[in-house]
Formats: sequence, structure tokens, C-alpha cells
Amino acid sequence: MYFNSEDIATMHRVKRLKLINSITGIKPANLIGTISEDGLTNVAIFSSVVHLGSNPPLIGFIMRPQQDVARHTLENILANKVYTINHVHANIIKKAHYTSVKFDSDESEFEHCKLTATFVSDFKAPFVEESHLKFGLRLKEIIPIPINGTSLVIGEIEHLIVPDKIIDAQDYINFDEIDTVGIGGLNTYYSINKLDQFPYARRNELPGFD
Amino acid sequence: MYFNSEDIATMHRVKRLKLINSITGIKPANLIGTISEDGLTNVAIFSSVVHLGSNPPLIGFIMRPQQDVARHTLENILANKVYTINHVHANIIKKAHYTSVKFDSDESEFEHCKLTATFVSDFKAPFVEESHLKFGLRLKEIIPIPINGTSLVIGEIEHLIVPDKIIDAQDYINFDEIDTVGIGGLNTYYSINKLDQFPYARRNELPGFD
Repeated sequence: MYFNSEDIATMHRVKRLKLINSITGIKPANLIGTISEDGLTNVAIFSSVVHLGSNPPLIGFIMRPQQDVARHTLENILANKVYTINHVHANIIKKAHYTSVKFDSDESEFEHCKLTATFVSDFKAPFVEESHLKFGLRLKEIIPIPINGTSLVIGEIEHLIVPDKIIDAQDYINFDEIDTVGIGGLNTYYSINKLDQFPYARRNELPGFD
Repeated sequence: MYFNSEDIATMHRVKRLKLINSITGIKPANLIGTISEDGLTNVAIFSSVVHLGSNPPLIGFIMRPQQDVARHTLENILANKVYTINHVHANIIKKAHYTSVKFDSDESEFEHCKLTATFVSDFKAPFVEESHLKFGLRLKEIIPIPINGTSLVIGEIEHLIVPDKIIDAQDYINFDEIDTVGIGGLNTYYSINKLDQFPYARRNELPGFD
């Protein structure tokens, strides 16, 4: 099936939403945990978390325009400058998905979706206890993307919790052990299985391709 | 295993690279196709493609600092203002991975990695014929991320090719049919399998969580 710019522009809004949200491929499934100034916890699912660099360890995510459901997340990050990112695994996909409900500002998704807030030392933002791999970040910068009113929120990792069993002898991470999932489009969840692993690709070690 | 800022800062460089590149979870696997002003094709694997919005249909990806291997991709995008994004599937993971080799500027990864360049009407950038889902974009903006010298490259979709069989009756995309893969860290490839799909999450339709 082929669509040009015109086909996409004139497509039914919901069909376009489903289609364009799907075409980047499998997306990471993460819960972002925050807390308001008066101590109300918040957790919301995001599929737009992206690696920016390892030294310093910087992670970004795309925030939709502020009138959107995700506004509590942004308000809380702006208030406290800290937030957490927590992997979604197969056993919590339903709870994770329903954090996207538009709850009122005095309701916590942790409570309504039966997830557990947990804290690390004096870091204010809540982690998701059920999540296996999680990290706490300090806000470094919010870069506006004027073309459609989104923003790239950038944080630096201050706390990182990774299960021992998924780090192998060569320091590679194997997600199979913790049932990490991915998201397709707006609402489809996929399990993942390791297919293959290749070395760092060097010009003089190019293999044959059959 | 727990790491704080200090642990991460003092970690061996390669261990940190592997660890921090892994912690966002499963990442989409896409090949970005470009062409130079004098007609040399280029294709490179990226795990940082991210959805920015569906109307207009905007897609971003993170470009590492220019001295990096990916510079031909950026040079070509700046020269022609167009590029393609092509899904990686299970049968081409090895070829896709080795596009990350530092080839010389007069060599095409298409040729060395045995991938096939294909073109759509008068759109200058090459698509990857072997890829099942692919789209052509026009450069809209490159947003610098000064904190670590990376950039967010933003394009608008002008051509979109999606296999009929993966669009269901409700306009949802099912990746299972085309063996779409995901990337973990720098070099691990995962197959994906649909686990579950949930409706748009509404406050008054909150399910029970067992």
C-alpha cells in the first residue's frame, strides 16, 4: 500500500494517528515516574524514550503539547527537576497501558493502576517497584520543537538499577531474562526474543552475506 | 546492581557505552538511506528514530556529533534535503548491522552489504528494496542539542510504503507479519511477538488489575 503526502494529509484523523504512530517500528515501553510539589505521585507510559549519549549519560523523551494528558508529568518535572524511567515487562503491560487514562490532578496512577511507588535515598521522584530495570534522572534541558509544539526533555542519569542476571561477561545486556516489552503504534505490546548479536563492525572484518 | 552518578562517571568507557546504550529498552531498527550530490548512495543503521507527530507526519532521529561515522548521512541530507527510513527485518539483520562500518566516502554500503537501492518517482533518496515498510522524508529542521553535540533531525513524510497485510480492519498495524526486529544496546537484535492490544484508555472504562 502506497501513500503520498496528499493521501496522508486527507486521511481520516484516527487512521492517520494509528498509522503514523506505528511506522517507526518497535518502540521502547517505559513508565515515567514523577511527584508534584505537594507530594502526589504520578506515573505515565511513554514510547518515545531515546538514548542521547553515554558520557555524560543522557536520555531524552518527547513530550507532546502541554494541553495534552501528559501535562502532569511535565509540571512535576519542572517543579522538582527529577523523574524516573522504568521498563515495562510482560506482567505489567495492562497496568502500564492504563496509566494513559486522563486522571484528575488529585489522583495518582500508581493507586488506580495498582503499581507501587518506591524511593531511592534522598531522590524525590518515585520509581516503579514492579519494574526490573529503572533509572532516576535530573532534568538538564527542555528543547522546544516549534514545528509541532512538542519538546525534547533531556535528563542525566543519577541512579541506575539493573538486575545482575541480565549483564553478561562482556558487559552486554540481555533483555530476554526480564521479559522487557516493546510497543507498536498506540496500544499493541510485543514480547522480544534475542535473535543474534554481532561484534562492533570493522572495515577489515566484513563477513560474507548470503 | 546499583550505580550512582559517580559509578557511571568512573566506569570503564566501553562498559559504560554498552550499559547506557541498553537501558532505554528495545529500540526500533531502521536503515536510513541517502544519496550524495554526485549520486553515491549511502545507507546506515539507526536505533534512535522517534515519532514526533502524525499531523503533519513528522519523524525524528538523533544524529551523533559530526566527526562520527554517520557524517555521510548528515552531509547527504543537508545536500539533498531528502532521506528514507526503512524497517529492518529478521532476514537482513546481519547486512543492516554491517552498514555501521566506517566505509570510505567513495564506497556505498548498499554494495558492500549486499542491499539493493530502489527509487520512487522523482524522489532522490534511495529506499532499501529488501525492507518491507519504508518511507521517504523531506528535511524540515535540524535541532542542535548543545549539551553533548548531538542533533535531532526532523523530517516530514512524503512517501509511505506499508504492506497491505499488516494493516488490520481497525487500521492497526501488526508487525508480526513482517518480522520487524528491535535493537538492544549497540549490537543485539531481537524478534518481536504480539502479546496483547488494549483500547484507548478511558477513565470510565478502567478494567480490574489482577
